[in-house]
Amino acid sequence: MRDSEFGFIAKLAAMFPAPEGVRGIGDDCAVIPRGDGRDTLVSTDLLTEGVHFLRNRIPPRELGWKTAAVNLSDIAAMGGTPTATFLSLAIPKDCDDGFLSEIMAGYADASRAYAAPLLGGDTCASSGALTLNVTVLGECPHGHALLRSGARPGDTIYVTGTLGESAAGWKAVQSTLPETDLTRALIHRHYHPVPRIAEGREIAACEGAGAAMDLSDGLASDLRHILKASGCGAGIDVNALPLSAQLRQFCKEYGTDPLELALCGGEDYELLFTLRPGTTPPVPCTAIGTIHAGSGLVWKGTDRDFTGFTHF
Amino acid sequence: MRDSEFGFIAKLAAMFPAPEGVRGIGDDCAVIPRGDGRDTLVSTDLLTEGVHFLRNRIPPRELGWKTAAVNLSDIAAMGGTPTATFLSLAIPKDCDDGFLSEIMAGYADASRAYAAPLLGGDTCASSGALTLNVTVLGECPHGHALLRSGARPGDTIYVTGTLGESAAGWKAVQSTLPETDLTRALIHRHYHPVPRIAEGREIAACEGAGAAMDLSDGLASDLRHILKASGCGAGIDVNALPLSAQLRQFCKEYGTDPLELALCGGEDYELLFTLRPGTTPPVPCTAIGTIHAGSGLVWKGTDRDFTGFTHF
Repeated sequence: MRDSEFGFIAKLAAMFPAPEGVRGIGDDCAVIPRGDGRDTLVSTDLLTEGVHFLRNRIPPRELGWKTAAVNLSDIAAMGGTPTATFLSLAIPKDCDDGFLSEIMAGYADASRAYAAPLLGGDTCASSGALTLNVTVLGECPHGHALLRSGARPGDTIYVTGTLGESAAGWKAVQSTLPETDLTRALIHRHYHPVPRIAEGREIAACEGAGAAMDLSDGLASDLRHILKASGCGAGIDVNALPLSAQLRQFCKEYGTDPLELALCGGEDYELLFTLRPGTTPPVPCTAIGTIHAGSGLVWKGTDRDFTGFTHF
Repeated sequence: MRDSEFGFIAKLAAMFPAPEGVRGIGDDCAVIPRGDGRDTLVSTDLLTEGVHFLRNRIPPRELGWKTAAVNLSDIAAMGGTPTATFLSLAIPKDCDDGFLSEIMAGYADASRAYAAPLLGGDTCASSGALTLNVTVLGECPHGHALLRSGARPGDTIYVTGTLGESAAGWKAVQSTLPETDLTRALIHRHYHPVPRIAEGREIAACEGAGAAMDLSDGLASDLRHILKASGCGAGIDVNALPLSAQLRQFCKEYGTDPLELALCGGEDYELLFTLRPGTTPPVPCTAIGTIHAGSGLVWKGTDRDFTGFTHF
C-alpha cells in the first residue's frame, strides 16, 4: 500500500478500520493473526504502463521479474516468508503472445527464486494500458512482523545495499541515454530489483529490531512514514549514505546530483530499518542516522532539504 | 480466476504447479491449508473500463459495490467465509474525488454487508482506463471447500436465484434502451450482484454436496468447467431454467432470446452446484439437470446449442 496519494489512503483507512488484532492499511503488508501461532501477511501492488514502466522499453522478462519482485519486497519489509502470489493482467490487443510469455517467464524466475508460487489470477482485455496487479501472501510467527511503528528514540537507522542506482537507471531509460556498461548496469538495477527476503527475516529475528519498511518511493519520503507511525523524529547523515561508485560515475557523466537520486529517486527496494542502541546488525547494512524524540527530519552534512517522489 | 482466455490460464497452471496440499489455478479460489484446521481461500479479479463497465454509465457507488461483490462471489462459490479484501485502483486524471468517494462508499457497503474489511491496497495514476483489482481472502474448515471437481455421475445440478437478468440489464445499458421500471430493475441486477455467501456455506456444510462455482461467464460456459474438472458430462433441461417474469417481459419487448441471455449472458453471480442423488437442497434453488458419466453437455427441450461468452 503506497501512502503518498493525496490522503486517499488515509481516508480509506478511516473508512475501513481493521478488526481487533488485525493490522490493516498503513504498513507494507496487512497482518492477519491465525489460530496456529502464525500471522498471514498480505500486500497488493498495481503496475501500469506509462506510469510504472514504458512497454516499448522494458524487456518483458524484466517486467515479469519486477512485477513479482516489488511485491515480494513488501513481505521482506515485514520480515516475513512469502507463500503465494496472485497475478491479474489487463492486456491490450497489440500485446502479443510472445511478449506475454516472456512476462510470465520473468515472473516465474522470481517466483522460483523466492519460493512464492503463483496460485491464481485473472486476465482480461484492456482498452488501453497494459496493467499488472500482484497480491502476495506471506507469513511470520505471530506478533513478529516488522512494523513502521517500531522505531524508538535512540535507535540507529540502517539501510541494506546502496541507494539511487535504480533511479539513475530510470533516468537513463527516460532520457534514452547512450548504452554503455554503466547505463546498462544501472538500468538493470532499475528493472531487476532484489527483494531482501532473507535480510528481512534476519532483522525480524533480531532481539533489538525496531521499525522497518522497504524503500519504494525514496528514503526522504519513506522514512517519514516510519517517523509518523512511530511518533519520532530523525537525523540522517547524508555523508554516510551508501552510494555506489557507479552512481557517482553516472552523476558525474550526466550532471545529476547523487543525493537527489539516493534520497528522492525511489524504487531502490532496499530495507530501511532501525535497531535499538548497541544492537549488532544481523545483516550487511549501513548506519545512516539516528531516531530522536519529538518530530522532524534533519539532514546532516548538507544545507539542503529533500522530499520524496509520487507516482500519483 | 477466469478460465476462458485462449488457454493462457492453462499455460500458467502448467508453469506454476501448486505445492503439495495446496489448490492453485483452476477453481474460483486458491485453497491454502494452515496449521489451525482451517484453509485460507484467495481470489483476485480485475475490472477495467470499456471491458467490464462503462465509466460514464455505471453509477460510481454501484461500481464500488460490484467490484467488491463479484470477488466475494468467488468465496461464496467455495462455500467459504470472507475475511478481508485488498483493492488496487489505477485512476485516470479526469476521474474526480467525488467519483472516487462514491466508488469507495459502494465498496464499503459491500464490505460491511459481508463483514469483509478492506485491509490494504494500492492507488496510482492511469494513463488510460479506470482499472480496479480486488483480492479477497476467506476461510473454511480444512478440506471443506466446494470444488469444481466435486461432481459425480447421478448428481443433480442446481442453480440459486434466476438467470439472465444481469445480461438483460447489460443489454439495456449498451443499447441505451429507454428507462422504464423494467429496464431499471434489470440494470440494477447487472450493477448490483449479490454474492451468495450464506448459500455457499450451507451447501458446503451439506452432507451430499458435490461441485460448485459461481456463474460469471454464463451457465453454458461455466458448467463446462465443472464437467472438465470432474471428468463428467451433463444434461440440462432448458425448460427447467429459472427465468424471471421480468426477463421474459424484457425479451418479449426487445425481441431478445431469454435462453441466450440465461445461458450465455454472464454475470449472474448465482451459484451453480451439484448434490448427490436424494440430497435435499439446503438452500432455495432450482434443479436444472443431471450429471452423467462420460463427457459432453446435452441441452434437453431444445435443438439448439449454447456456448458461453468471453471478456477476452
